[in-house]
Amino acid sequence: MHLRFSSSTTADGVVERDFTLGDVPGVLWAAFPPTPGAPLLLLGHGGGLHKRAPGLVARARQAVIRDGFAAVALDAPGHGDRPRSDEDARWVTAMRRAREDGRPLGPVLDPFNRSLAERSVPEWRAAIDALLALPEIGPDVPLGWSGMTLATAIGVPLAAAEPRIRALIVGGSLAYDWLLEAARKVTVPVEVLLPWDDPELDRASGIALFEAFASEDKTLHAFPGSHFRVPADRVDTRFFVRHLAGPAAT
Amino acid sequence: MHLRFSSSTTADGVVERDFTLGDVPGVLWAAFPPTPGAPLLLLGHGGGLHKRAPGLVARARQAVIRDGFAAVALDAPGHGDRPRSDEDARWVTAMRRAREDGRPLGPVLDPFNRSLAERSVPEWRAAIDALLALPEIGPDVPLGWSGMTLATAIGVPLAAAEPRIRALIVGGSLAYDWLLEAARKVTVPVEVLLPWDDPELDRASGIALFEAFASEDKTLHAFPGSHFRVPADRVDTRFFVRHLAGPAAT
Repeated sequence: MHLRFSSSTTADGVVERDFTLGDVPGVLWAAFPPTPGAPLLLLGHGGGLHKRAPGLVARARQAVIRDGFAAVALDAPGHGDRPRSDEDARWVTAMRRAREDGRPLGPVLDPFNRSLAERSVPEWRAAIDALLALPEIGPDVPLGWSGMTLATAIGVPLAAAEPRIRALIVGGSLAYDWLLEAARKVTVPVEVLLPWDDPELDRASGIALFEAFASEDKTLHAFPGSHFRVPADRVDTRFFVRHLAGPAAT
Repeated sequence: MHLRFSSSTTADGVVERDFTLGDVPGVLWAAFPPTPGAPLLLLGHGGGLHKRAPGLVARARQAVIRDGFAAVALDAPGHGDRPRSDEDARWVTAMRRAREDGRPLGPVLDPFNRSLAERSVPEWRAAIDALLALPEIGPDVPLGWSGMTLATAIGVPLAAAEPRIRALIVGGSLAYDWLLEAARKVTVPVEVLLPWDDPELDRASGIALFEAFASEDKTLHAFPGSHFRVPADRVDTRFFVRHLAGPAAT
């Protein structure tokens, strides 16, 4: 499968290119001119959001401008510009009702996120293949994954299946059995973000996810508040610069 | 009280100067030539260690070389080059026996660390006064505190009493009542390091300390293992660069 690029915009030295891979829309951010061999950051969006969520775009632009990386985002199934299936629509409705009624979200989020992950992981692997075939990226670039909530449900199974991912930042997720199972297969460096006072995500889940990773190099980063307001600058550890760029970049 | 400088050595552009302030010995690390106005990092050593503990020296040199800071360390009472009082010697013996017998260290560490903190905080305040009076440092430099275990028992009360300290990294401590009380008075940015699997320091203590800080900007950074092996590079968030240096430095 090949990437089809459509529109392209440039701002502050960052080229932002829309593409589709089959029926999956995505965005690629890169320096202009591009730097072949630059690390590529895979950015997942949260549940209900999309490939151009403001927080995601900010991380993408920072990765390019500050760290010299490229970055890519895809719409998850049923998100952003993609049609939502009837089954997904039922899950979304059930989740909203649980939220309104103050019931736990786990019984809905568990099968919903699992289904989204099962569909999204092959899409990401196809996108990685296609992106690394581009001359302006290259076959051997180091890959990182970053994203919370839904992007954790997708990123952890993706990292478990995809040895080209060398480091990941995840968090803000319930501790689904299938997610913990995937985490136990991940051995690359990982940072787990834990919103400390989240009304919908219990601390024990965040801690269970942290403990599940098989990685020798793993750290847990907790911050006050909920996953709706992640103080990225406060937990910034230049993690991807350390793990994806050469020693000179750190 | 004035600083009396004695020996001075220079390596890799870092000048390391021994000094005494009254009967308290210390070391000052700075760039050569010195940079007046550079942030000053106050480095506490762990219990049983001293002002030239290898980990502390590494942090001091990194602060100078990488971040353009100055750094200073003092021997805590009864540590390093300072005589140990009979009372301190009894506490040390009691602590060693508790450790050998596998008993909790809290009943000994609580009064021992409290006493050391009560003696050390005035020494640090006097040292700050004397250091900021040096022309090569200057009266308005931003101060940070960094140190675990005993350096947390000293640094938190010091920061509660000393508004010139603008940011601190602490951790690896039991949750003594007097320490939590001091943490509740600290409002500046703080990072709490939490060794996740420490046989002598329970997780709940680290979490209680994190929760006690009144700081709006606070994060908890947990890592596998004990406080005897802190993976500084893995939890490095360039925290002091963000909080003590100008925006340009971040």
